[in-house]
Amino acid sequence: MSTGIVTPSGYPCKTETDLTADDFVFSGLGLTGNTSNIINAAVTPAFVAQYPGVNGLGVSAARLDLAPGGVVPMHTHPGATELLYVVHGHITAGFISSANKVYYKTLKKGDIMVFPQGLLHFQINAAGRRPSLAIVTFTAPSPGLQILDFALFANDLPSSLLEKSTFLDDAQVKKLKGVLGGTG
Amino acid sequence: MSTGIVTPSGYPCKTETDLTADDFVFSGLGLTGNTSNIINAAVTPAFVAQYPGVNGLGVSAARLDLAPGGVVPMHTHPGATELLYVVHGHITAGFISSANKVYYKTLKKGDIMVFPQGLLHFQINAAGRRPSLAIVTFTAPSPGLQILDFALFANDLPSSLLEKSTFLDDAQVKKLKGVLGGTG
Amino acid sequence: MSTGIVTPSGYPCKTETDLTADDFVFSGLGLTGNTSNIINAAVTPAFVAQYPGVNGLGVSAARLDLAPGGVVPMHTHPGATELLYVVHGHITAGFISSANKVYYKTLKKGDIMVFPQGLLHFQINAAGRRPSLAIVTFTAPSPGLQILDFALFANDLPSSLLEKSTFLDDAQVKKLKGVLGGTG
Amino acid sequence: MSTGIVTPSGYPCKTETDLTADDFVFSGLGLTGNTSNIINAAVTPAFVAQYPGVNGLGVSAARLDLAPGGVVPMHTHPGATELLYVVHGHITAGFISSANKVYYKTLKKGDIMVFPQGLLHFQINAAGRRPSLAIVTFTAPSPGLQILDFALFANDLPSSLLEKSTFLDDAQVKKLKGVLGGTG
Amino acid sequence: MSTGIVTPSGYPCKTETDLTADDFVFSGLGLTGNTSNIINAAVTPAFVAQYPGVNGLGVSAARLDLAPGGVVPMHTHPGATELLYVVHGHITAGFISSANKVYYKTLKKGDIMVFPQGLLHFQINAAGRRPSLAIVTFTAPSPGLQILDFALFANDLPSSLLEKSTFLDDAQVKKLKGVLGGTG
Amino acid sequence: MSTGIVTPSGYPCKTETDLTADDFVFSGLGLTGNTSNIINAAVTPAFVAQYPGVNGLGVSAARLDLAPGGVVPMHTHPGATELLYVVHGHITAGFISSANKVYYKTLKKGDIMVFPQGLLHFQINAAGRRPSLAIVTFTAPSPGLQILDFALFANDLPSSLLEKSTFLDDAQVKKLKGVLGGTG
Repeated sequence: MSTGIVTPSGYPCKTETDLTADDFVFSGLGLTGNTSNIINAAVTPAFVAQYPGVNGLGVSAARLDLAPGGVVPMHTHPGATELLYVVHGHITAGFISSANKVYYKTLKKGDIMVFPQGLLHFQINAAGRRPSLAIVTFTAPSPGLQILDFALFANDLPSSLLEKSTFLDDAQVKKLKGVLGGTG
Repeated sequence: MSTGIVTPSGYPCKTETDLTADDFVFSGLGLTGNTSNIINAAVTPAFVAQYPGVNGLGVSAARLDLAPGGVVPMHTHPGATELLYVVHGHITAGFISSANKVYYKTLKKGDIMVFPQGLLHFQINAAGRRPSLAIVTFTAPSPGLQILDFALFANDLPSSLLEKSTFLDDAQVKKLKGVLGGTG
Repeated sequence: MSTGIVTPSGYPCKTETDLTADDFVFSGLGLTGNTSNIINAAVTPAFVAQYPGVNGLGVSAARLDLAPGGVVPMHTHPGATELLYVVHGHITAGFISSANKVYYKTLKKGDIMVFPQGLLHFQINAAGRRPSLAIVTFTAPSPGLQILDFALFANDLPSSLLEKSTFLDDAQVKKLKGVLGGTG
Repeated sequence: MSTGIVTPSGYPCKTETDLTADDFVFSGLGLTGNTSNIINAAVTPAFVAQYPGVNGLGVSAARLDLAPGGVVPMHTHPGATELLYVVHGHITAGFISSANKVYYKTLKKGDIMVFPQGLLHFQINAAGRRPSLAIVTFTAPSPGLQILDFALFANDLPSSLLEKSTFLDDAQVKKLKGVLGGTG
Repeated sequence: MSTGIVTPSGYPCKTETDLTADDFVFSGLGLTGNTSNIINAAVTPAFVAQYPGVNGLGVSAARLDLAPGGVVPMHTHPGATELLYVVHGHITAGFISSANKVYYKTLKKGDIMVFPQGLLHFQINAAGRRPSLAIVTFTAPSPGLQILDFALFANDLPSSLLEKSTFLDDAQVKKLKGVLGGTG
Repeated sequence: MSTGIVTPSGYPCKTETDLTADDFVFSGLGLTGNTSNIINAAVTPAFVAQYPGVNGLGVSAARLDLAPGGVVPMHTHPGATELLYVVHGHITAGFISSANKVYYKTLKKGDIMVFPQGLLHFQINAAGRRPSLAIVTFTAPSPGLQILDFALFANDLPSSLLEKSTFLDDAQVKKLKGVLGGTG
């Protein structure tokens, strides 16, 4: 994989003579993410940007660390379906369908759950005082990630447009823009 | 198209001997939608459910009527890219990318704008006291539609899970659930 | 989008830091096309070549201006299905299926019609002394366009090969090559 | 493969317990086609309708018999690219690109030539008094086939629409409709 | 998902009113597979046949239990790329490319490795006297599975054809057919 | 097509002004392959590397020469379905399905047979003392080719890993590595 130039199908391919087994292996998901943050959780991606070996192969992965009280907030992956595997702990996970129906369940160690492409979904630690760990895989090398709160409150989307298009109160918007650094 | 049975690629195909030109034409987008509602807007779909002729053809459409003050609230199409054409009026439209960058502009009659698959976007009437009209097309017969406020506040997603995964205040959640009929 | 190099999936992607809302908006379809020509019609494309923002997004568009007597002659799009929307006027549009069945209808303002990928189709003004206007969208950034008369009579395809493969009379071929500039 | 019901991705699949090697083999291309006809040629298809074993496999084939003077007239395959292999004889084959450029060549035994999806192309016997034989394969189980003369002159497309959309003379249209059985 | 009828794109879809969160969750991968067998290993699939919720979603999974000395023998997935995650233990995993180059490495807990679609690959326990556990995901609901030894020695492929096409000695073929139950 | 840089969708495209009919024609399959080798057979590819004109077109081809006793050994194409046409002679061809069922038949001149993507298959001359000839086409410009014996015995895959993952005897492995040049 070379850097800087990407086509709609992905990056230029490394020539096979330059490839070794290490190109197809990624060890970054073996490390516990830093959950000392506002969501008490960490998402460690193994997308094509971090793990070039999946270029053109239609797959990528990520590690979800959920400390006590940890949450992966409501989000979508615009370009991929997600499959979650609970390595340890308990996780309450759910998604909302295109027909506006909610599907959620508290998963235990060993469970898998699928989140169809592009739909809002979330994961919340349900293991009480213990952490939970999940590995998720995606059906694309670059699944995209749109975290709802960041999309709404952590950029320069003018509050007037945001409030008109979400019906959220101005106070609520101001509060969350304040927390997340949004302007406008 | 028969009813009731759908596969991942769409509905069973009508046999060609049963087809007429009327199967490929849809007149429902010629009618002004009823905008006497909370959003002062109407979305009239011509998806495969309304317009069976697009089954298997990778395309569908919809009509957006925006009365004065009208808004098509923040939403995504999980399964399709959208292309909007302004028939008359002015519309402020925007989307937020996977990199959390905001792209918005006030469009005039004749302008087109593209909204990449799965990303949050919105359209707001910018024609003052006059209505605006847009036709949108999609790159799938069933693009899906996830309106953010409906997904959050108009179903039975428990408020506890919703608040944990969105950081919205309980008062805000209760208020919008009240307006939109959400429970839980 | 850079110029000059195209892959089977499209052009190299512009980096997101270089993108603005203007990349996703195209205003060229707001202008009336020049219909002072042999077909009394104008096709204004918003393909990836004119509208780079659709690169990789699976969609494009065009504007059809039909003056009185105007015709978009028999043609195909080898790489995309087309959806037509009548902005004003009346248009008689049709296509011929792979089973050699003809589907045509006179469309009115607000009607949409779909033309499946690769099939011969046409649009003729049916508004008498008034012009008609349609916007068409395609399920590919580069749908391709093969106008039958141009393919047959406006290049250097030898008349002997053309006549053998179409059974058109030599006089007819000579006449239309004369009008359209064909040689050979 | 069951009969009668087809989805956008093809027919229902036969269960594997019912399959034998004969399902994957087709012998119909071993027989010389009947070329005693107006084009002195025969196209013997091995599409999914004749050869159900290719259902879902993205491929099909056909046999082209070209007697002396034989022609496979100008046509398109709306849903597949074609690759032609000359078994014996000489064949002048060509296609016209979306940019209206003509590519043609006289092929000899053993040559292959590719015809991109949806573009007009033709094959003419160039072996003088001897027959030629070609096998063509397609990148879809149902490539579709739109023979130009049949699409224009062998159905009920009204002559008025046909003439307006092709600029062919009325006498030419009447003559070929007479030969090919067209009405309207 | 109904049973018995499958199309090239998958099974008929269950209607959304009949769906619950349990349709999207699968708990079967939480159970240790029975490794008391010739390969000291167990593959527990969560393909669409076991886990109908992935129908149409482009993903599936499996659990690999490797007892001491355990091996998932050389095999391919004709229809999907595989991504492996080591839950605990050490696993020596590798694949052979289309250019006949071997890529293998001993993976530790937390490592992921990708195996491109259709290529021969294997996994061997490298944790000495301890078991290893991996979860694999696939880019298709039905990835297919062709275990080399089963394909060669556990069906009725005649030994004469097998030996001619693999250059394996008759004694070797007879021995492994004896172990694996092959005939012919 | 330029050299050296390939993306997941293929090579950069040659500009149309530089293309001639010769780009779309390939004559290399007209030449008899050299079958004086260990398999008494020759595979002459017309993949995108030899035949750049198929770049982006989803198709390629190859010629199979089978001398008396000739064999195309057990192999897979990881990225394409294959369709075989017998030009002359008799060929015993077969494949093994993902359900471990064997499908084989002796084909005669004019027969076609399809080999689904990624499955082990083989072709053996069944014409006694005469040669046989087949043309095969693929549903991808780069179908890939994994010849089983080469993958196992003609690279540096360590014998210990090979034997553990195939259950082949050490003597058998050593013998075939000796013949085919494998190390490790």
